[in-house]
Amino acid sequence: MKFILDCDPGHDDAVAIILAASRINPHKIEAITTVAGNVEVEKNTLNALKVCDIIGLDVPVAQGAVRPLIKQSEIAKEIHGETGLDGPNLPDIPEKQAVKQHAVDLIIEKLLTTDEQITLVPTGPLTNIAMALMKEPEIKQNIKEIILMGGGSYGNWTPAAEFNIYVDGEAAKVVFESGIPIRMFGLDITHQVLATSETVNELRVMKNKVADFIAELFIFFIQAYKDHFDFDGGPIHDACTIAHLIDPTIFTFKHLHVDIETKGEHTYGMTVIDRHGVTGKQPNVFVATGFDEEKFWKMFKDAITSYGN
Amino acid sequence: MKFILDCDPGHDDAVAIILAASRINPHKIEAITTVAGNVEVEKNTLNALKVCDIIGLDVPVAQGAVRPLIKQSEIAKEIHGETGLDGPNLPDIPEKQAVKQHAVDLIIEKLLTTDEQITLVPTGPLTNIAMALMKEPEIKQNIKEIILMGGGSYGNWTPAAEFNIYVDGEAAKVVFESGIPIRMFGLDITHQVLATSETVNELRVMKNKVADFIAELFIFFIQAYKDHFDFDGGPIHDACTIAHLIDPTIFTFKHLHVDIETKGEHTYGMTVIDRHGVTGKQPNVFVATGFDEEKFWKMFKDAITSYGN
Amino acid sequence: MKFILDCDPGHDDAVAIILAASRINPHKIEAITTVAGNVEVEKNTLNALKVCDIIGLDVPVAQGAVRPLIKQSEIAKEIHGETGLDGPNLPDIPEKQAVKQHAVDLIIEKLLTTDEQITLVPTGPLTNIAMALMKEPEIKQNIKEIILMGGGSYGNWTPAAEFNIYVDGEAAKVVFESGIPIRMFGLDITHQVLATSETVNELRVMKNKVADFIAELFIFFIQAYKDHFDFDGGPIHDACTIAHLIDPTIFTFKHLHVDIETKGEHTYGMTVIDRHGVTGKQPNVFVATGFDEEKFWKMFKDAITSYGN
Amino acid sequence: MKFILDCDPGHDDAVAIILAASRINPHKIEAITTVAGNVEVEKNTLNALKVCDIIGLDVPVAQGAVRPLIKQSEIAKEIHGETGLDGPNLPDIPEKQAVKQHAVDLIIEKLLTTDEQITLVPTGPLTNIAMALMKEPEIKQNIKEIILMGGGSYGNWTPAAEFNIYVDGEAAKVVFESGIPIRMFGLDITHQVLATSETVNELRVMKNKVADFIAELFIFFIQAYKDHFDFDGGPIHDACTIAHLIDPTIFTFKHLHVDIETKGEHTYGMTVIDRHGVTGKQPNVFVATGFDEEKFWKMFKDAITSYGN
Repeated sequence: MKFILDCDPGHDDAVAIILAASRINPHKIEAITTVAGNVEVEKNTLNALKVCDIIGLDVPVAQGAVRPLIKQSEIAKEIHGETGLDGPNLPDIPEKQAVKQHAVDLIIEKLLTTDEQITLVPTGPLTNIAMALMKEPEIKQNIKEIILMGGGSYGNWTPAAEFNIYVDGEAAKVVFESGIPIRMFGLDITHQVLATSETVNELRVMKNKVADFIAELFIFFIQAYKDHFDFDGGPIHDACTIAHLIDPTIFTFKHLHVDIETKGEHTYGMTVIDRHGVTGKQPNVFVATGFDEEKFWKMFKDAITSYGN
Repeated sequence: MKFILDCDPGHDDAVAIILAASRINPHKIEAITTVAGNVEVEKNTLNALKVCDIIGLDVPVAQGAVRPLIKQSEIAKEIHGETGLDGPNLPDIPEKQAVKQHAVDLIIEKLLTTDEQITLVPTGPLTNIAMALMKEPEIKQNIKEIILMGGGSYGNWTPAAEFNIYVDGEAAKVVFESGIPIRMFGLDITHQVLATSETVNELRVMKNKVADFIAELFIFFIQAYKDHFDFDGGPIHDACTIAHLIDPTIFTFKHLHVDIETKGEHTYGMTVIDRHGVTGKQPNVFVATGFDEEKFWKMFKDAITSYGN
Repeated sequence: MKFILDCDPGHDDAVAIILAASRINPHKIEAITTVAGNVEVEKNTLNALKVCDIIGLDVPVAQGAVRPLIKQSEIAKEIHGETGLDGPNLPDIPEKQAVKQHAVDLIIEKLLTTDEQITLVPTGPLTNIAMALMKEPEIKQNIKEIILMGGGSYGNWTPAAEFNIYVDGEAAKVVFESGIPIRMFGLDITHQVLATSETVNELRVMKNKVADFIAELFIFFIQAYKDHFDFDGGPIHDACTIAHLIDPTIFTFKHLHVDIETKGEHTYGMTVIDRHGVTGKQPNVFVATGFDEEKFWKMFKDAITSYGN
Repeated sequence: MKFILDCDPGHDDAVAIILAASRINPHKIEAITTVAGNVEVEKNTLNALKVCDIIGLDVPVAQGAVRPLIKQSEIAKEIHGETGLDGPNLPDIPEKQAVKQHAVDLIIEKLLTTDEQITLVPTGPLTNIAMALMKEPEIKQNIKEIILMGGGSYGNWTPAAEFNIYVDGEAAKVVFESGIPIRMFGLDITHQVLATSETVNELRVMKNKVADFIAELFIFFIQAYKDHFDFDGGPIHDACTIAHLIDPTIFTFKHLHVDIETKGEHTYGMTVIDRHGVTGKQPNVFVATGFDEEKFWKMFKDAITSYGN
């Protein structure tokens, strides 16, 4: 199965890229596309390229939306630092270069010219995906599924909204109402997938360049979650999406109706999950509701180990 | 301490009245006022009077708001039946009569003429309380606290909103923004306070008229929750407020900021609880977050037993 | 025909009171009630009493809502000055006293005890009227008509909203959706009813205490409109309602559907007038659309003259 | 000066194209782009091509957005007929073909490769323009001005909103908040620019193929306005934009602040024009407020005549 990773790296996005390109992933990355989110899109693109350099990943990287569809921009420097990937010692300029094509056009081209359906894996705001759907509605039939990190029963950026959905609620609305099958990893689950100092120790003993890189990411990220959210452990949100691609038995799901709130005074960007069917609306999202912690961390170590020394 | 019970009985409101008038409650009911909610206000008033008849309670009962401030009416016959108190065999017409005064005026009069602060205990939509605050803002200084059943992190009437707040979101907004100390029992807690068939059995062995009445209420209510929400057990939501009056160690609380959403497309009537302080707003509500089940049921039995045979 | 004048004097409300009590008005004022609006309700009440003193009007004056139903308060000192009736030299304390009853209760009592239908004439925010309808919905059947000043195709307080409706959009929504016949004098018409320096001159030559009082009101009011809105002339908005009571041939009307916007980001408090029937909704308001200037000013002079010297 | 005409022909768009390509227009059409609006975008594209065939216009025509950014689609068959250009006898398939490039990409390419600033002239919903601004924000500096038909003090599709803005309020919001100079022809003006049976007669006597085509458009359009809006005359809305390009003395303008309402319950898609500066916000739009009828129709006839026989 082919997939496109649309991201805003971002510490947890970086982990997602690394899992995605690991030898234990049976699926094929067609492209990495970037979007304004954790930090400005230009920085997110540089970060994606630097991660590719570290793991030797050779796929096209295309830069996408500079800002949300309608709302003003919002970034998360508190969590990801000035560069968006603070922590590890990284070169200013990556060796790998982005393609010239706009992310939206690369997504459209891949989807219009493919011989099989492609899965989209957005781990940042949904701006690129929404713009692609607006620009070429015909791509819809070639999207197998959208596996996304975002939303949840509660928020982190506001009491009701998670960052990715909050940044571009209108884009999320377009995607969630598109009729395309959606699989959603929200905070209820991703807050259970925590990197801790123990995780860092386990990575250190691997004696592996990629493991060391992740360890340095985690050290910064764990501290940022401690400082900003008073959280013990760094939730590697975005990695859940790829973890599911690699091993679809790690998470369990419920098929539920989810609406995106874009009008609320205090709830903009909320994913309103109808857990008990009170709206009477048809399910449109497979919401991740369960998590096998042991399986996840086994997969995680296998993936890192697969990079060899 | 004096308190006024503003309610829409309703099975769980009926239990709240019974606990409130029990001999183990050290506080004094000044009045019972009714509001449109579970069913039409006229029926809620009749039900309040009938409960008073059963327990021999002699306090003024005044009828209040016929409908929400701004929104159209909404009732919950699915849960409480046609009369609002289906289950027990009750006379059509109670012996006790309501006073002629409007609930809003009775609340205002009590608060303007009291020599000590009075606690308000609303267990239905907040229409009466909001109207009283609108009509005589000076009552505010004589309200000790508002201890209410409503809201929660999730909803029951919509995915985001609990029935009492949903029915009159504007009234809730007025109350929550009033600056008066608020103690809130939302669904997160009240869904843990469950009457079950075991509870019914324990009531039956008491050989007590009041216990029998409650048992019959519970039989109907448990079935309604099974049928409508596929819930095992009937959450006696409203009783939590009075339980706290009787024994303030049953529940634990966090002091948090809570906003009421009135503009949302999918979130009207949501209590947006800022559990992690991300809004930077001052706490305005003591939100019930913990529950000592054993203590609750001990208090419950003591209260029923106090009615004697 | 009996009517109740619900107002927030206010220069143009003062003129409305004077026209209402003039001998040429065939209808009978049952009461004057006041509401927070142009200035704080306490000041509006004092002003109503002072105007009664000047014209020797003996009707009950009752004070009403201190603030809008849901929204924060907003006042218009720019237009009416610190007292709400700046300009004439008035005593600090009027001789006449307000009744103790709340305006909402006086309105309800008058409507529940009348032997004929009563017309309501609100010339301020609609808070009292909405509260009365909430508190005793049965009054509806005894309200002949609501003749109000408010709204229009465009605004004065915001680009879309006129002051009276903007101050309490929720109250306006309750009133406009009540099903009661409504006659609306909006800015399209009231901006044509202009007091000018010529009007002042004509009042001066009347050699009449009431005329002098109005002349002094107009001098201040004309200047305020010049300063604040760069308007030539002071629109005596509220007087249109009573002018219509006195001579129903002065204004012409169209029966149209009017909605009140309460959700808009830039349009809160707008009266959305469906002039061309594009919504397909039934007409609910007689909107004043035409004005016979000559007839108005003749009526105006006759009314003042009727006070004698 | 170069300009791009972004349209949804549509009878009045067709007239705009004809004026735009006439010899009396000193400015150069760089491209015609189409957008979903009066009818589906595919039909609008065919119509643009057919008009090009009739007048022998050789510019690239590119098809754009299939639907609004966020909202569901809405079309205006009542006014423009099944084809979007009902009336004249036109071939099913035009000779001219559209370019393969998406309208948004053609607009971006033209703006990124130009040696002088380009004016955008949108006469349909603003979806393409908003998408271009989202996709390549750098185009902004090469846009001289956006001269658009849309909005007004009142609406035609709802009481508050004009069709073009109503169809895609979010796109309008993006454009109006972009900081690019905007010139807006709203209904206040375009409803004064009326084709009548007299106009048809004058066109008939020209004995000119283009004049005959317009005459047939007008006959259908005048009848549609009569039937649907009970209007005497067909307002050739979109033609005003090009009329201004040809002769900038036909219309007069005021520089005002205009907000786009996207949250209102009854006012979605309204252009909220701050005519009296009450918001205190900086002007962002030159709103057409005056119209020299004689000059317009002289220009109109000169333009048609310039096509020769």
